[in-house]
Amino acid sequence: MSARAQEAQAGALPSCCPLYHEAVELIGRRWTGAIVEVLLQGGALRFSEIAHAVPELSDRLLSERLKDLEARGVVSRQVEPGPPIRVRYELTDMGRSLEPALTELKAWARRWLDAAPRRAN
Amino acid sequence: MSARAQEAQAGALPSCCPLYHEAVELIGRRWTGAIVEVLLQGGALRFSEIAHAVPELSDRLLSERLKDLEARGVVSRQVEPGPPIRVRYELTDMGRSLEPALTELKAWARRWLDAAPRRAN
Repeated sequence: MSARAQEAQAGALPSCCPLYHEAVELIGRRWTGAIVEVLLQGGALRFSEIAHAVPELSDRLLSERLKDLEARGVVSRQVEPGPPIRVRYELTDMGRSLEPALTELKAWARRWLDAAPRRAN
Repeated sequence: MSARAQEAQAGALPSCCPLYHEAVELIGRRWTGAIVEVLLQGGALRFSEIAHAVPELSDRLLSERLKDLEARGVVSRQVEPGPPIRVRYELTDMGRSLEPALTELKAWARRWLDAAPRRAN
């Protein structure tokens, strides 16, 4: 096929939506999906509670991810006046709205990942 | 709170499902979500067609991602006897089953990512 024909054909091809791309990489960022899931299930949680629910995750990385999610508007950080001062992390409306997508993804994982080949792991 | 009390309380906390964790990081891996989306829209596509639909992605990385998705059972690679030999990539049943999750995620992205703060970018 000529370069021009290829170009013409390619013009009709799907292209990937930038907002979707941003979303999929936001929640797919290492441990982010896990943190959002824990907050969906647990409501407002303290740092140590999230850390306990995702034990493979280091405190340093958890802190970094929470800051990132807060900056993106997915998580809010509430400081309860003390003493002792307590900090809790909670999903915002934006964060809670991820639930349908993550529920579908969980169903997919249960259906397909038990039996799937994993040569790439 | 004592360490024991903390432990007891933490025992009631949600923990993150390993299969879900694997799924979210599979599709969230850099460019993987975009490639799956293009194949969902486009059916069986040649390498150059996928590359055209995701222009920011290098050929080297596209090749690596397609091999990974094939190894995990998400994509199948079909060689049509030539000449010229044509190779096409298509989602398997497992890959196509990602559609509901990705559709929800697209809806979320359209609803929330236009207006969201992005200090972290």
